[in-house]
Amino acid sequence: MKNIAILCSGGDVSGMNPALKQFVEYSLQNGLTPYFVYDGFEGLIDNKIEIATHKDAAGIINRGGTIIGSARSKRFMQKEFREVAKKNLDALSIDMLLVLGGDGSFRGMDIFYKEHGIKFCGIPSTIDNDINGTEYCLGVDTALNVIKDSIDNIRDTAASFSRAFVIETMGRNCGYLALVSALCSGAELCLIPEIEYDLKEYEKSFKEQIKSGRKYFIAVVSEGIKEESSEIAEWFEEKIGLESRVTILGHTQRGGNPTIYDRLMAYKFVNHAIDGLLGGRDESVICYTKKGFEYKSIDEIANKKYELDSELLGYLKKF
Amino acid sequence: MKNIAILCSGGDVSGMNPALKQFVEYSLQNGLTPYFVYDGFEGLIDNKIEIATHKDAAGIINRGGTIIGSARSKRFMQKEFREVAKKNLDALSIDMLLVLGGDGSFRGMDIFYKEHGIKFCGIPSTIDNDINGTEYCLGVDTALNVIKDSIDNIRDTAASFSRAFVIETMGRNCGYLALVSALCSGAELCLIPEIEYDLKEYEKSFKEQIKSGRKYFIAVVSEGIKEESSEIAEWFEEKIGLESRVTILGHTQRGGNPTIYDRLMAYKFVNHAIDGLLGGRDESVICYTKKGFEYKSIDEIANKKYELDSELLGYLKKF
Amino acid sequence: MKNIAILCSGGDVSGMNPALKQFVEYSLQNGLTPYFVYDGFEGLIDNKIEIATHKDAAGIINRGGTIIGSARSKRFMQKEFREVAKKNLDALSIDMLLVLGGDGSFRGMDIFYKEHGIKFCGIPSTIDNDINGTEYCLGVDTALNVIKDSIDNIRDTAASFSRAFVIETMGRNCGYLALVSALCSGAELCLIPEIEYDLKEYEKSFKEQIKSGRKYFIAVVSEGIKEESSEIAEWFEEKIGLESRVTILGHTQRGGNPTIYDRLMAYKFVNHAIDGLLGGRDESVICYTKKGFEYKSIDEIANKKYELDSELLGYLKKF
Amino acid sequence: MKNIAILCSGGDVSGMNPALKQFVEYSLQNGLTPYFVYDGFEGLIDNKIEIATHKDAAGIINRGGTIIGSARSKRFMQKEFREVAKKNLDALSIDMLLVLGGDGSFRGMDIFYKEHGIKFCGIPSTIDNDINGTEYCLGVDTALNVIKDSIDNIRDTAASFSRAFVIETMGRNCGYLALVSALCSGAELCLIPEIEYDLKEYEKSFKEQIKSGRKYFIAVVSEGIKEESSEIAEWFEEKIGLESRVTILGHTQRGGNPTIYDRLMAYKFVNHAIDGLLGGRDESVICYTKKGFEYKSIDEIANKKYELDSELLGYLKKF
Repeated sequence: MKNIAILCSGGDVSGMNPALKQFVEYSLQNGLTPYFVYDGFEGLIDNKIEIATHKDAAGIINRGGTIIGSARSKRFMQKEFREVAKKNLDALSIDMLLVLGGDGSFRGMDIFYKEHGIKFCGIPSTIDNDINGTEYCLGVDTALNVIKDSIDNIRDTAASFSRAFVIETMGRNCGYLALVSALCSGAELCLIPEIEYDLKEYEKSFKEQIKSGRKYFIAVVSEGIKEESSEIAEWFEEKIGLESRVTILGHTQRGGNPTIYDRLMAYKFVNHAIDGLLGGRDESVICYTKKGFEYKSIDEIANKKYELDSELLGYLKKF
Repeated sequence: MKNIAILCSGGDVSGMNPALKQFVEYSLQNGLTPYFVYDGFEGLIDNKIEIATHKDAAGIINRGGTIIGSARSKRFMQKEFREVAKKNLDALSIDMLLVLGGDGSFRGMDIFYKEHGIKFCGIPSTIDNDINGTEYCLGVDTALNVIKDSIDNIRDTAASFSRAFVIETMGRNCGYLALVSALCSGAELCLIPEIEYDLKEYEKSFKEQIKSGRKYFIAVVSEGIKEESSEIAEWFEEKIGLESRVTILGHTQRGGNPTIYDRLMAYKFVNHAIDGLLGGRDESVICYTKKGFEYKSIDEIANKKYELDSELLGYLKKF
Repeated sequence: MKNIAILCSGGDVSGMNPALKQFVEYSLQNGLTPYFVYDGFEGLIDNKIEIATHKDAAGIINRGGTIIGSARSKRFMQKEFREVAKKNLDALSIDMLLVLGGDGSFRGMDIFYKEHGIKFCGIPSTIDNDINGTEYCLGVDTALNVIKDSIDNIRDTAASFSRAFVIETMGRNCGYLALVSALCSGAELCLIPEIEYDLKEYEKSFKEQIKSGRKYFIAVVSEGIKEESSEIAEWFEEKIGLESRVTILGHTQRGGNPTIYDRLMAYKFVNHAIDGLLGGRDESVICYTKKGFEYKSIDEIANKKYELDSELLGYLKKF
Repeated sequence: MKNIAILCSGGDVSGMNPALKQFVEYSLQNGLTPYFVYDGFEGLIDNKIEIATHKDAAGIINRGGTIIGSARSKRFMQKEFREVAKKNLDALSIDMLLVLGGDGSFRGMDIFYKEHGIKFCGIPSTIDNDINGTEYCLGVDTALNVIKDSIDNIRDTAASFSRAFVIETMGRNCGYLALVSALCSGAELCLIPEIEYDLKEYEKSFKEQIKSGRKYFIAVVSEGIKEESSEIAEWFEEKIGLESRVTILGHTQRGGNPTIYDRLMAYKFVNHAIDGLLGGRDESVICYTKKGFEYKSIDEIANKKYELDSELLGYLKKF
């Protein structure tokens, strides 16, 4: 009987809980004993590692966040604490680990593997969808649907007034969330870090649209653009002549009942991750690409920046 | 055949559209010809007044905002523009008006009535629930349910980390939204303008809770308190020792599919308003009180500040 | 230190969990030790009675159903089992009980009180809203909002075809759910047990509406009417000439994240119930009436059938 | 300037409205004049064909169903009516058509093309996801999320009692909806037409689970299985000894605000369909496969039954 553990690292996403449930079930189906590591790499160091049963994973499938907690760990970047972590795992005879997180977490695990031989498979999990090598990161679909609902709400109000609304999404340096939610909610303006823009170019068109009867504008902008959202709002006031409001969606984007897509992807990521470990892949990240699921090395993942899908960018031209 | 019109003034709320639908239906049932005034008092001045049919009100019951637009009007505060408005109404033989808005709008209507004899009934409509004399303003229930969903989402994330979340609701100088949503989402801290507080008094208790195992705090604060939300977050970081995040809910609170309660209250407000006008009440506001629906004069409404229900405030003691 | 217990009896409703949370908090604030009785009166008999702590009530506020379970109990109708229940309560020194349920449950408690002196306060809890003496039963608002969302979904489809949709709500012999959800979703037909109707009378009007361009009909009917829903659908097919579909909403109506209104009413019901017991009311039901909260005796509650609000019925005329 | 039209045929799905919006926008971007055909092939025959503008497609993106109506047409299966349809299209110089529907509709179009040379591209649209040759049909994701929410609601109730719930999904002869929603909601039993089953095999396991403490079961079954849902419920009562309830989800599954995934897929399907027509593909269906988007012939689509993904079926073993 072999032992396997799972932990969440970095920002939480909706979909982690379904992944935890599937981890317990698929491990047991494969004759493995599953363990939960609480509070990320911190929990590895502090020995918060416990056997996980069906009961521990019951009733969590429809909850956002992660019941085993997540954390960012500075200590795990130090050799001495990784040694402590290794001892804790050894004491429980655990030599395989699933890591739900981003590329930084995977890089940390890779060092740990090279030092101590703890095998791992990374599952890309971030609402920013900014991990190179995978088309999809767990949690993105739920985040997008939460954003969509918020924009739908704001549109109700926008349409009742003559106003511009500037809505700021998360995404760090990646415009994915802003781009897709702008496209899918029919926003009139979308600004993301990946695309150079000059607000001046919109002035003429927007003023003409107002003359033709348009009463309001919805602008969806990514947090990573060069201006503050408040500056975009000022531009609407000063250059377009429209009263404007800013809404920063913030942490409401992170949570929520996981969508079907995120539940299903959670299952698939977990099964492929466990299959990979059992099949001899000792240090990999399970990615979802146009070819299906693929195992990739840390170097493939982390050696360059994520690039937005060109098909999606093509849709942006209309703005 | 008599003519009657309706307009929305000030901030929009979910529930205005069901009110418009009921206005059309109940007017017709009473042998009145209903008119929509578009864009608030501005539309009265600019003669945006049109007959409303069943068809105009079809399919709007589940939409937030208002299909006839709302606006704030500085011009209506000037005598000359009110004269224009009067002429426009005379041209259509309209001498009765329903006004969905706040006390400022009702005050404006009252002047208009005294000058020109246009009868009116005000329907309290603001998510802030800050109008004196009525226990309920149209739109509040929908706003509260939207806020609740956002806090539920944020709690998912908060519970996954050791963090404090500061969530800022609307409400201007009234703490109603913050108070009720804090109570109903089990927040650990609620700060509103009506209640003096000293953050120091929470320090000891919060630190003890952390020692006893509490991992996170949700603080719901009203936009009208003396500190910025960011200052509350800093307090959590510096005094309580918890990483913290701010979410300003903003305009997402305004919109959304109207709840059952707001749809039903919209019907009742409208019916009582029309009944009042037909029954000889020429200048009133229809209020919802502990005794049921009551007609009140502008002076009763506007002569003092809304006070929070003492029963609700009693619940706050636990914080 | 006194002990107090709570149990859920009969059908579950959304709002029971917030009530349980408030029961724990308000009991502790009043120096009482709170106990949960699991699985209704069955749990009283089987001694499933446990101390309830803050921790037991954490994280439940946004969940439908009841974490302590509910049940219907035939055994509790027998004297011998009530004696067992009494012994179980005595062993824990519990002599006060809150009962979330319907009038049948309250009647059972009343017998129990008269035999054994266990004081109680009933909290009306049923989505059917059919308890005489109270305007509101816990859970109704959530149920209505769930129904509303379903009807909104069905309307999308209905509007895309030329069809009649017959939607059956719960409610047993009470038409409240059907009436309010029909009104609030703008249904074209509403049939409830309280109102005699003759489908023939609608034939002419409906056919005329189709001639004038109406493409679809939404009919909301209560499960307690004399016909089966399928018969109403057949009537649309045969007499009105419209393809038709039946949807029986079923148990989806029972669940769901409790609305703000149900959360707040749960708090208020619980506080008044505990206040009543502490204030010397040994056998009562806490009701919500047009005058506010009132304590009533079982006889006042159970001596006649609930009657629909005449104001609401007035709205029905339009059909 | 070329003309292009779009129509919806067969059952409506959420995602048709975003597709209509994108059809207008992408046609105009490509120098085509877009037309809406109302009420499916019936509208082709009855000449309900109208130019579509940006304004016609405004504000529809978040609405289920289809604003241009759908219908099943027996007349279009007759040569004489297809000739009428051809004349109507000729009169407007329309020789390209997008068809949102199922394989029956595409087959009809193929005959029409062969007779009259009207080029077309089919976009697979059905919540049943039962069209051979494509992994995805428009509307499936929204339907699944609606079903998920319903099951989540029912689970609240199930967990409060000792009960079995049998939930019936749509899907005709295809078990996709039932399979995915069962997997994603952690149902204890899933029955679909594609998989032979013998209820007897579950008896022992289910009884043992009850002995081990399980209180309730959720069974998700497809409408196409050999038994009625009520028979499954009876089996739970008689063989497993659990009170049981049936919920037939019905037409609530069809509607609802389209999810992000369906909005995005609507855009992509439409763009590829128009690109195909402009690129010389005169009679095709745009499919989404593991290789991406592919144009297929009617024969490829309709020559065999859709088969469930083997990976998904693999997950079913656990039941």
